[in-house]
Amino acid sequence: MDLTETQIDTALVYDGNFIQVYKDHARLPDGSIGMREYIKHPGAVAVLALLDNGNLVMERQFRYSPRQEFIEIPAGKIDHGEEILLTAQRELLEETGHVAREWIHLTTAWPCIGFSDEKIEYFLARGLTHQGRQLDEGEFLEVFELSLAEAIEWIRLGKITDSKTIVGLFWLEKYLKGWGE
Amino acid sequence: MDLTETQIDTALVYDGNFIQVYKDHARLPDGSIGMREYIKHPGAVAVLALLDNGNLVMERQFRYSPRQEFIEIPAGKIDHGEEILLTAQRELLEETGHVAREWIHLTTAWPCIGFSDEKIEYFLARGLTHQGRQLDEGEFLEVFELSLAEAIEWIRLGKITDSKTIVGLFWLEKYLKGWGE
Repeated sequence: MDLTETQIDTALVYDGNFIQVYKDHARLPDGSIGMREYIKHPGAVAVLALLDNGNLVMERQFRYSPRQEFIEIPAGKIDHGEEILLTAQRELLEETGHVAREWIHLTTAWPCIGFSDEKIEYFLARGLTHQGRQLDEGEFLEVFELSLAEAIEWIRLGKITDSKTIVGLFWLEKYLKGWGE
Repeated sequence: MDLTETQIDTALVYDGNFIQVYKDHARLPDGSIGMREYIKHPGAVAVLALLDNGNLVMERQFRYSPRQEFIEIPAGKIDHGEEILLTAQRELLEETGHVAREWIHLTTAWPCIGFSDEKIEYFLARGLTHQGRQLDEGEFLEVFELSLAEAIEWIRLGKITDSKTIVGLFWLEKYLKGWGE
């Protein structure tokens, strides 16, 4: 069955500082016309930053929308026209002060397909050296180290509940084991 | 360091059919005032529906925001005031036609903390029997079976890229193995 929904028209119905909402009419699979409302997003990167001592570089950050702190991997939005590897390198440096010798693209995942076109590009960064971080204005976060085994345990315990971070950590564990048992 | 950001004021700046955008002023950790823009979401459930033959009940669905099809686990929004287990039972029945004898709450994860307060409650459903599905108007999806091993392989291959589904499948694999190696 062809499930494709085809755009008929589109309108920018809210143009905010960070959020743009679009409302479209679309032709649905049964031929009827439906309304679709969604957020356009520039996309993001997330970085599994593996230190030579085997620990990951992690962040503790307060997130205003859900009004609580989260444990996260370094991540950030793609600037307009920016190549994704450069975004990953920029965000890792800005947020944690690290540069990496080796960069491997792990996967692409879509965090909220119900109402946004955001996609996240995951990178593994190795061969890290520390310079100094340069946080964006209005950005506050703490950086700390955590082993992958501890991080997986924190997922089990519900201490790590950010989906972007859970996807990254599980993927990294599989990748490092060669996807075997 | 206390990273808490405290609400000063709030305004509903876009009130759509499915999306509500709020713009707040908040006191930031350094004492300055910042602007925070975000989507309020009622929350959602996602269901790992495990058949007696060992396969999972999966869905193929076109998602308009990213303009492509995704392989997903059954999921849906919480209706106002609805108990989360009832949401899970309702969505599984509506989308796949299954009822389950056993329900286990697995975890809670937050899919897009950068701009939404959405959280997803994950359930494992076992002891399934098939009745008939009752899709919402304007909802089109195909249901099929997939083993957990195949699903994990589809994550590796990039055939499953929905973060909600990746989190659920990895979590289920760990859960069924007792979180050991």
